[in-house]
Amino acid sequence: MIITAKRLITGDGKTVIPQGAVLLKDGKIQEVGEYAVLRAQHPEVTCVEEYGDATLLPGLIDMHVHIGYWYNRRDKELYDKYLVGYMALDIAQRALRSGVTTMRDLSSAGGVCQSLIVASKKGFLRIPRIIHCNKALNATGGHAWQAGDSIVEVDGEDEIRKAVREQVRAGAQWIKVMSSHRTPGISEYTQEELNVAVDEARRNLRKTAIHSSLQPSLEYAVNAGFDTIEHGTDLTEDQAERMIAKGMAWTPTVLVHHNAYTRLQAIIDAGESHNLNEAQWQTYRIYGASNASFRRNLKAFHDMGMTIVSGTDMIGEGAKPAPVAAELAVMVEYGLTPLQAIAVGTSNCARVLGMEGEIGILAAGAQGDILVVEGDPMADIGTLEKVKAVYSSGEKVCE
Amino acid sequence: MIITAKRLITGDGKTVIPQGAVLLKDGKIQEVGEYAVLRAQHPEVTCVEEYGDATLLPGLIDMHVHIGYWYNRRDKELYDKYLVGYMALDIAQRALRSGVTTMRDLSSAGGVCQSLIVASKKGFLRIPRIIHCNKALNATGGHAWQAGDSIVEVDGEDEIRKAVREQVRAGAQWIKVMSSHRTPGISEYTQEELNVAVDEARRNLRKTAIHSSLQPSLEYAVNAGFDTIEHGTDLTEDQAERMIAKGMAWTPTVLVHHNAYTRLQAIIDAGESHNLNEAQWQTYRIYGASNASFRRNLKAFHDMGMTIVSGTDMIGEGAKPAPVAAELAVMVEYGLTPLQAIAVGTSNCARVLGMEGEIGILAAGAQGDILVVEGDPMADIGTLEKVKAVYSSGEKVCE
Amino acid sequence: MIITAKRLITGDGKTVIPQGAVLLKDGKIQEVGEYAVLRAQHPEVTCVEEYGDATLLPGLIDMHVHIGYWYNRRDKELYDKYLVGYMALDIAQRALRSGVTTMRDLSSAGGVCQSLIVASKKGFLRIPRIIHCNKALNATGGHAWQAGDSIVEVDGEDEIRKAVREQVRAGAQWIKVMSSHRTPGISEYTQEELNVAVDEARRNLRKTAIHSSLQPSLEYAVNAGFDTIEHGTDLTEDQAERMIAKGMAWTPTVLVHHNAYTRLQAIIDAGESHNLNEAQWQTYRIYGASNASFRRNLKAFHDMGMTIVSGTDMIGEGAKPAPVAAELAVMVEYGLTPLQAIAVGTSNCARVLGMEGEIGILAAGAQGDILVVEGDPMADIGTLEKVKAVYSSGEKVCE
Amino acid sequence: MIITAKRLITGDGKTVIPQGAVLLKDGKIQEVGEYAVLRAQHPEVTCVEEYGDATLLPGLIDMHVHIGYWYNRRDKELYDKYLVGYMALDIAQRALRSGVTTMRDLSSAGGVCQSLIVASKKGFLRIPRIIHCNKALNATGGHAWQAGDSIVEVDGEDEIRKAVREQVRAGAQWIKVMSSHRTPGISEYTQEELNVAVDEARRNLRKTAIHSSLQPSLEYAVNAGFDTIEHGTDLTEDQAERMIAKGMAWTPTVLVHHNAYTRLQAIIDAGESHNLNEAQWQTYRIYGASNASFRRNLKAFHDMGMTIVSGTDMIGEGAKPAPVAAELAVMVEYGLTPLQAIAVGTSNCARVLGMEGEIGILAAGAQGDILVVEGDPMADIGTLEKVKAVYSSGEKVCE
Repeated sequence: MIITAKRLITGDGKTVIPQGAVLLKDGKIQEVGEYAVLRAQHPEVTCVEEYGDATLLPGLIDMHVHIGYWYNRRDKELYDKYLVGYMALDIAQRALRSGVTTMRDLSSAGGVCQSLIVASKKGFLRIPRIIHCNKALNATGGHAWQAGDSIVEVDGEDEIRKAVREQVRAGAQWIKVMSSHRTPGISEYTQEELNVAVDEARRNLRKTAIHSSLQPSLEYAVNAGFDTIEHGTDLTEDQAERMIAKGMAWTPTVLVHHNAYTRLQAIIDAGESHNLNEAQWQTYRIYGASNASFRRNLKAFHDMGMTIVSGTDMIGEGAKPAPVAAELAVMVEYGLTPLQAIAVGTSNCARVLGMEGEIGILAAGAQGDILVVEGDPMADIGTLEKVKAVYSSGEKVCE
Repeated sequence: MIITAKRLITGDGKTVIPQGAVLLKDGKIQEVGEYAVLRAQHPEVTCVEEYGDATLLPGLIDMHVHIGYWYNRRDKELYDKYLVGYMALDIAQRALRSGVTTMRDLSSAGGVCQSLIVASKKGFLRIPRIIHCNKALNATGGHAWQAGDSIVEVDGEDEIRKAVREQVRAGAQWIKVMSSHRTPGISEYTQEELNVAVDEARRNLRKTAIHSSLQPSLEYAVNAGFDTIEHGTDLTEDQAERMIAKGMAWTPTVLVHHNAYTRLQAIIDAGESHNLNEAQWQTYRIYGASNASFRRNLKAFHDMGMTIVSGTDMIGEGAKPAPVAAELAVMVEYGLTPLQAIAVGTSNCARVLGMEGEIGILAAGAQGDILVVEGDPMADIGTLEKVKAVYSSGEKVCE
Repeated sequence: MIITAKRLITGDGKTVIPQGAVLLKDGKIQEVGEYAVLRAQHPEVTCVEEYGDATLLPGLIDMHVHIGYWYNRRDKELYDKYLVGYMALDIAQRALRSGVTTMRDLSSAGGVCQSLIVASKKGFLRIPRIIHCNKALNATGGHAWQAGDSIVEVDGEDEIRKAVREQVRAGAQWIKVMSSHRTPGISEYTQEELNVAVDEARRNLRKTAIHSSLQPSLEYAVNAGFDTIEHGTDLTEDQAERMIAKGMAWTPTVLVHHNAYTRLQAIIDAGESHNLNEAQWQTYRIYGASNASFRRNLKAFHDMGMTIVSGTDMIGEGAKPAPVAAELAVMVEYGLTPLQAIAVGTSNCARVLGMEGEIGILAAGAQGDILVVEGDPMADIGTLEKVKAVYSSGEKVCE
Repeated sequence: MIITAKRLITGDGKTVIPQGAVLLKDGKIQEVGEYAVLRAQHPEVTCVEEYGDATLLPGLIDMHVHIGYWYNRRDKELYDKYLVGYMALDIAQRALRSGVTTMRDLSSAGGVCQSLIVASKKGFLRIPRIIHCNKALNATGGHAWQAGDSIVEVDGEDEIRKAVREQVRAGAQWIKVMSSHRTPGISEYTQEELNVAVDEARRNLRKTAIHSSLQPSLEYAVNAGFDTIEHGTDLTEDQAERMIAKGMAWTPTVLVHHNAYTRLQAIIDAGESHNLNEAQWQTYRIYGASNASFRRNLKAFHDMGMTIVSGTDMIGEGAKPAPVAAELAVMVEYGLTPLQAIAVGTSNCARVLGMEGEIGILAAGAQGDILVVEGDPMADIGTLEKVKAVYSSGEKVCE
């Protein structure tokens, strides 16, 4: 099968092929090039999908999801494991239909991601590619301590090693550690504990991610050498430089901060600030600061050479699952070019996942994960939300 | 929307409308009649689905399924609740695509059916209408005692009342009791215990089903007045008469017995009987007897006035889910007319479920549960397996 | 194979064949008769075992053993389930070597008898035929309440039914109930509870045994209609008559009473009675009474038509396992003829077990369970202990 | 008693005595020498067992068994502790009859080995000499994590010390640690954890064995100084040298690898490779590599001075128990001389067990553990399977 459209963005951050086309075979991409050339070279291909004034690009990747996060549901007394499982499935399938063909789940109800993968292999259902950490490691009283069975509360070297091993047994490809959120000045884990988590993960050939927003946990995270820092709102330029030197990547999750802030700013701008309660003012201050920080650093760190990846972290009830397109749109607002933003949402993620050339790119040999959107995202990044079709391993996803 | 085809079987056991049509509105059937008449009366309807040489009939009903039965899976160590949930969903969805729009689940892993219903109401997924008993009541050591959390092992009046109440709390519309399987001469429950189960269910406005194949448990079941007797292979004519008088119904599950027997008979006919082991010979004898009994009694009891309903009881790994069409085909082989068999698989079930006029019938006011099959099932009951389309509450089911 | 000796006792209580012989084939007895006749009729048989001045008789049956009773071991802290299992195996195998080819176990550590049977079927080991009750039913505080997991403490109709069902699930062919021991005037169970135990057992096609020594529990036991009364030291003539009328049998276990009494009597006779403590005096009185009772009733009840069976009830550490020969010797002392006693230890037991013609008899069609003893037990019942060979299902037991 | 045959192999790897004989007394070997000499010196001995063209050698030793491993049985729902105990007994007794008079059990269901030893001391049964580790130490998620109660899942220094102490309390003479199996690049335990296990075992005067096949766990194992490395398929020459220097021994378990590989190779050679599934191909690759490694290293390391011992590791249902003779035959195929192989299966094991001179040797003062085989194992190592008699502590084992 050949898929073609007015333009094709390979996802490498620079290459665009006008009248581009992809030749798919056995679920994989066999060739990428100009349609006229592919068509001429492959007269044997009978099926051609022609999308007109549209753009082909790699399926998007969300590096920060929690598809089995149900702890904040208003009717949570209804959520037994079956219902949690069905909720996670729905989120995963809606994400897939919106163009997200791969997701890194950074902690969900223990076991749900792995069972989704097993169920998919058994043909029970169809989901995007999922890579997961099973449960996150959280210090006793660490900020996620109320997140039920999506975390393990562990402290000290022995418990941390054991917890890492438990996640590996449960199918985790990544190890996720929680270490700071909204309270400045406190790292929930010590430097030594973070070092042990990274060491035990590496010994098991697993990668590591840390939820760290503030100092000093960011400093510890950089020292420990996590593969990705999640949020990292207070990262300094010096820390960014050391991350780059160590090959670490950054998942800023700008959208979730942007949304929280702009919602409150709109209230204030409407002259309704007297309606805000104390907690809302606190949120306004925190996200005001983080938005300012992202606006200042995103392009700067990117231009210094930082590997930035897209993560959306949407856990709210009713939130759109894995809105990578919106995440990338905020990044464009903060200074990236659309092509750079698309690389953030595709090939950068693939590289961080250790799957370079396999996903996140339209290139010969890659999986047939393809997103087709109306119009031209280089002119308007918002077109990434105008999905015309999604292919996952070469198969078209039902609308 | 109007749906039309060369013929329409209403499901009442006798009515056929040539060039029949159904007018659907808001998920329900507004009118049923000849296409020409409907078309003329409703010029405002713009959407017409015309299926040609095909037959419209009510969505089929399976009165005996176990969609969350995983205890016999070869790799059962993989089955956590999430995977059980995904397996049940897959079974339910495949049944729906085959034309089964309503199922009565007569015991599955506790909670899975109810959570499927909740998930469906929340829009997480799409399934056939499910009515369930949650867990079955099984005497200590009763024949289903190894079926994990799909049963509760209870004995004596107090435990039985409590167990009935637990199932009601868990969302059960039916109460299922296990009382005899393959061991003749033993009723796992006493008459008094069965009476209590029926009494407590009735007091809670729930209906009752009993797994009873042999004497004396069949005698006890008739005395107790269960709403349906499942299997009932050794029912006597006298017991059948008393069932009819009491308004009890019979779910013979002929297909599963037929399959087990004919598979072994084929081995014997091929001169390979030396390959059968002792357990297989025992199965051959048991199912040989039950097949002979069904062949003798099915039409006879039907003609006496027994309400017979379709139940498939398929729990094998890899078995086709809810093969109601095949169940009805065996009934035709045993003497029912195709129209009678279709009533067994539709309106009879609806009546037993207390949903007469709501499902299992193509008639004004009913839910838009419609099956469209190629050709004419009155000429060949096997055409029920040639599905052209399925509508569930008026919505076409994805193929 | 032909086995022959100077005399053959069939076990029916009367038949003796001089120069008798047994023809064995496929583990079963094909013919029984005079050696000369068998030899002449079966020239094809090449293997003949000739035992000289010896007697062939059926393998003995012990209707009252507790092979997995370890609760009184002095070093019981060593007894995990593995060691209990090995102890039970040793007892069973020593019993077999002493000529006991079938045993009814009337409560042992739960599961051990059934696992011995399974292990035997798998070829892990070789044991006598075992029929068992798994655990006994014991009223709360009933006399066996300290016998660990060889009993269940249950009271009231519902618990008793459940307990019976649990034993059935665990493989029990008999249901054993404890109801009185050394305390006169108290029945541990009510009449109603005993009736329920018998009813639930019968409903499950199981037989019933009751440990009952004294009034009024003997009266209740006779009313309830247990298949065997164990001990029954205080049975009245009236009760014996009703037992006979109801087809109930009696396991007096005379040896264990005889031993306890004569051991103490010997001390007294030696003028050492000042050495006896209070508990020993009590034992002396109780067993003095029971011995007197047995001496008075054994032959009397036998001659009235009572079915008497052999049971040894040896649970002491170091006791000889299943000393049926000694049990029968005491019965001869109490008035039975040797042939009657041998019937008590063989065919009577078979009849009570529902295995008449299958075991406990030297007759065509029976299992090849044969005991060969030196000399003539009709002249000296003590020769039953002079074992020359034991055959179990036709196979010679290793010495 | 004197036992004599055409030749006697002492087991020291070099000594053969033509017309050799052993003088047994009180279960021990009093003298070994030429028959003529012993006979002349001991005219008082009346019992002589003369085996003709046969060979006397020490009872064989299996350093790697799991006699109570039942986790892979197809009907494992039947296996309560009693049945596990009977299975282990059967395996031990069949091994004994095949000539294995001593076994080191490297993890079985907790307690079963120790209770076998206690039961043997109590005279309940007769088994080979058993030395055991009780349960193995397994990191959380380590490769044996599904082996039920034959392992303890422990991590970190404190848990490891406690687990070692628990095994010592349970009667373990060895401490077994699991650290790598089929996944290259991952050591399940850290260097520090392995060091602690060895240290705590030494402090308790226990010896240590490690299941380690691949790097880097082999490197850690050599550093830690385990007494034996089990499997060690990827051992380097450098590591072998360090093992020799440290007095460590190697249990390569060549047979189990050889069997797995040759079974699959035979399928491929028969042109049936299309019948192999993915798991079988993986097994083929893994065991192809390990076979090549053993073929290359076995004789080389042996000639460098490595102490090699025989271990069979047979856990499959239906596998021959403790096939030491077959293990030694593969070693001869890989380059050892028959006398060297016999030393591997006897005196080498004794030395590693700390029982030099006591078992594994025919010499004055040793236990009377003697194997008699037909013919000459020096001419044909396969004769080790032609057992004529086995003596265990001087007593002849029943066939």
